[in-house]
Amino acid sequence: MSHTQALCRFLAELNYAQLPDAVLARTEDLFLDWLASALASKGAHPIPLFERYARRMGPADGPAQIIVNGGSSSAYFAALVNGASSHLVEQDDLHNSSVLHPATVVFPAALAAAQDLGKSGRELLLASVAGYEAGIRIGEFMGRSHYRIFHTTATVGTLAAAVAVGKLLDFNQEQFINLLGSAGTQAAGLWEFLRDAADSKQLHTAKAAADGLLAAYLTADGLTGARNILEGDQGMAAGMSTDADPGKLADRLGSRWALLETSFKFHASCRHTHPAADALLDLMQREGLGHQQITHVETRVHQGAIDVLGRVTLPQTVHQAKFSMGTVLGLIAVHGKAGLTEFHELALSDGDVAAFRDKVSMTLDAEVDGAYPQRWLGRVIVTTADGRTLHGAIDEPKGDPGNTLNRSELADKFQRLTQFSGARTPAQTTGLIEKVWDLRNAASLAHWL
Amino acid sequence: MSHTQALCRFLAELNYAQLPDAVLARTEDLFLDWLASALASKGAHPIPLFERYARRMGPADGPAQIIVNGGSSSAYFAALVNGASSHLVEQDDLHNSSVLHPATVVFPAALAAAQDLGKSGRELLLASVAGYEAGIRIGEFMGRSHYRIFHTTATVGTLAAAVAVGKLLDFNQEQFINLLGSAGTQAAGLWEFLRDAADSKQLHTAKAAADGLLAAYLTADGLTGARNILEGDQGMAAGMSTDADPGKLADRLGSRWALLETSFKFHASCRHTHPAADALLDLMQREGLGHQQITHVETRVHQGAIDVLGRVTLPQTVHQAKFSMGTVLGLIAVHGKAGLTEFHELALSDGDVAAFRDKVSMTLDAEVDGAYPQRWLGRVIVTTADGRTLHGAIDEPKGDPGNTLNRSELADKFQRLTQFSGARTPAQTTGLIEKVWDLRNAASLAHWL
Repeated sequence: MSHTQALCRFLAELNYAQLPDAVLARTEDLFLDWLASALASKGAHPIPLFERYARRMGPADGPAQIIVNGGSSSAYFAALVNGASSHLVEQDDLHNSSVLHPATVVFPAALAAAQDLGKSGRELLLASVAGYEAGIRIGEFMGRSHYRIFHTTATVGTLAAAVAVGKLLDFNQEQFINLLGSAGTQAAGLWEFLRDAADSKQLHTAKAAADGLLAAYLTADGLTGARNILEGDQGMAAGMSTDADPGKLADRLGSRWALLETSFKFHASCRHTHPAADALLDLMQREGLGHQQITHVETRVHQGAIDVLGRVTLPQTVHQAKFSMGTVLGLIAVHGKAGLTEFHELALSDGDVAAFRDKVSMTLDAEVDGAYPQRWLGRVIVTTADGRTLHGAIDEPKGDPGNTLNRSELADKFQRLTQFSGARTPAQTTGLIEKVWDLRNAASLAHWL
Repeated sequence: MSHTQALCRFLAELNYAQLPDAVLARTEDLFLDWLASALASKGAHPIPLFERYARRMGPADGPAQIIVNGGSSSAYFAALVNGASSHLVEQDDLHNSSVLHPATVVFPAALAAAQDLGKSGRELLLASVAGYEAGIRIGEFMGRSHYRIFHTTATVGTLAAAVAVGKLLDFNQEQFINLLGSAGTQAAGLWEFLRDAADSKQLHTAKAAADGLLAAYLTADGLTGARNILEGDQGMAAGMSTDADPGKLADRLGSRWALLETSFKFHASCRHTHPAADALLDLMQREGLGHQQITHVETRVHQGAIDVLGRVTLPQTVHQAKFSMGTVLGLIAVHGKAGLTEFHELALSDGDVAAFRDKVSMTLDAEVDGAYPQRWLGRVIVTTADGRTLHGAIDEPKGDPGNTLNRSELADKFQRLTQFSGARTPAQTTGLIEKVWDLRNAASLAHWL
């Protein structure tokens, strides 16, 4: 049995009773965290473009809810708009070793299909776990070489979304094999847009969720796909990776719950900035340093950070500022935090932040790079005005599995994100949180949000 | 000015008055040939799956026509279904040096958008020319290494479709740059499905047409894309090619009409089989040979033929038979032609064809490979039962620009294809042909087909 076949058998056989309580609870937490990100983007460019596209090309309403505007459409367009909106504010979850943001592709597709198909909360949870477990393993399989040029959340995200919908459609092993073929041959998404701060990140997650859903519905109706799309001579790894590791595909299926390894984002910036941000904050608090006392910060980083962040020198937009190591560290140093509010009110306009930005450099560090992507180590070397050289180090950024957010912190993050956009009133927000933490008991998801 | 900028300036400035008569007439011919392919697939798997998907996810009707069923939908779903249907019977056009099938991606998107936007026949023709000229140059730019693993019609086709729709939306240079970014970052499609005779080819063209259209509508509404998606360090060539040639992107814009280099397909099989099929037919006619007198046919081919056809040994489906060199040559040798009817009635069941299939081999030929993809040379070495070794050679397969189909042959092909599926009555078919050859005078395309 090939690795792909083993993965597909696991997906077909996975059932609700098999899911540990910790996995169920964490899936609800991840869903809540995802919903916060989707709501936080209400009204922000380019989300209204996707809403208008759905209205122009889709039905006037339908069984699947569009989160940002409270409307509805067919499952395809709900997945598209919700996929776009949940990745905008850079607050959605991340799985470290796969460098995959699972929530923003899995939940839009799974929720839309669950509402379309009349499924329950339990079925949605089970399908989401399937999407996470498959997506994370496929991301690990594709390796670091893939991520250097391709946005893994876009490419592998298409398969993760497809698997979640396939599980809602009760696929057997054979259907999952065909499904991976049809999803994998649609896998696309290039990092090139970062240099221009273009809107492609939202397009990527929108399309990954919607294309994955499309692949699953067509597979259910009999569309066949390549049986070896991952490992074949003309498949995904052959075309888009030089270090693929087939053993990752079926890694400890049923005993390792990769979903539990997913990190929540604390800062509202690209995850590659978080280790250095936490290391700097820790050092400044320990030493009682103010930002004026610092003349230089050398961040010691992995290659992936340089690939993704190295493009941004002088950020022109709030979104680009989230990919500027200097800006993120500037917010941390000057204001002590780098949340959505800080980005929107200070990242581009605050003179102290701009001055600090120019003091920050990135250097490839062998130890940090060797640990990546399993561990995201934070290392900074700070030079002070009085001539000292200080070292900051953290081994697990805030939000990582060993340093995770508890339910109170998650609820607080949810309140902050929804209030940022005004998508829901505080009272509605409280009701929503309670609803999500009772997801496993929801008999129907119709008009659920 | 970069190559991409030069291409985008050309696309923005291109106008109807600039198009030579020969280009206009050929575009109408190519449109007719495309329409025949779309109609020929009516009722054939997997086209009804795409029709059902459009009904489930799209509006009940709309401004854009779905060719196979006479219904309508929004532009997005019309492009999707028409893109799927026009590539099924392997009779749609091909541009040699780009290895791109332009019609099956350009026309579905352009027609759907033209109907949606209330455009005229002239505007549709101009937009289609833009799509061909851009798509062919981008295909040439991506090179042979790309085609080894990626289905160029799927990947580059997304950009070709996008450009056609962008032209209908009157894009300026800046909008075309953004459009290429948003289309290029969606570019996907792997050859892996060929080994399993899976349905991905239709998924590829469906998605290329629909995704290109989506990119154009979102760009019109303000979505930005990478400004250097083709040549950038994390762009299409960086991720999916090792022999990209940037000079191809702006090759003789306005003086070379690449559309005129497009070949019509004569045989109903993969284009890679055509040179050998024509060389064998020519040799058998010249020597007065019957199939029983032949003990072996060595086809001397380019590497691309081996990459695409080498997967198929014993074809299991009609579609797979079109990718079997032995089957195609068997139909030619035994029945003198390899049209749709021969494939459906004889390719899998005729004992003589099966016997001939096993006599055919493929060998990489340095001369043929060196000429490819600019020229598709046909070379066969035939061994006869009476011990002779005979050489067959053609330098331009039937349907190539120097050996093209005239309007009478195109009308005949149209009749054969529409009668094959029964999609239209012979009388309707005659009316359709006249309509397409008067496309440049159509003031409106509403309910046009």
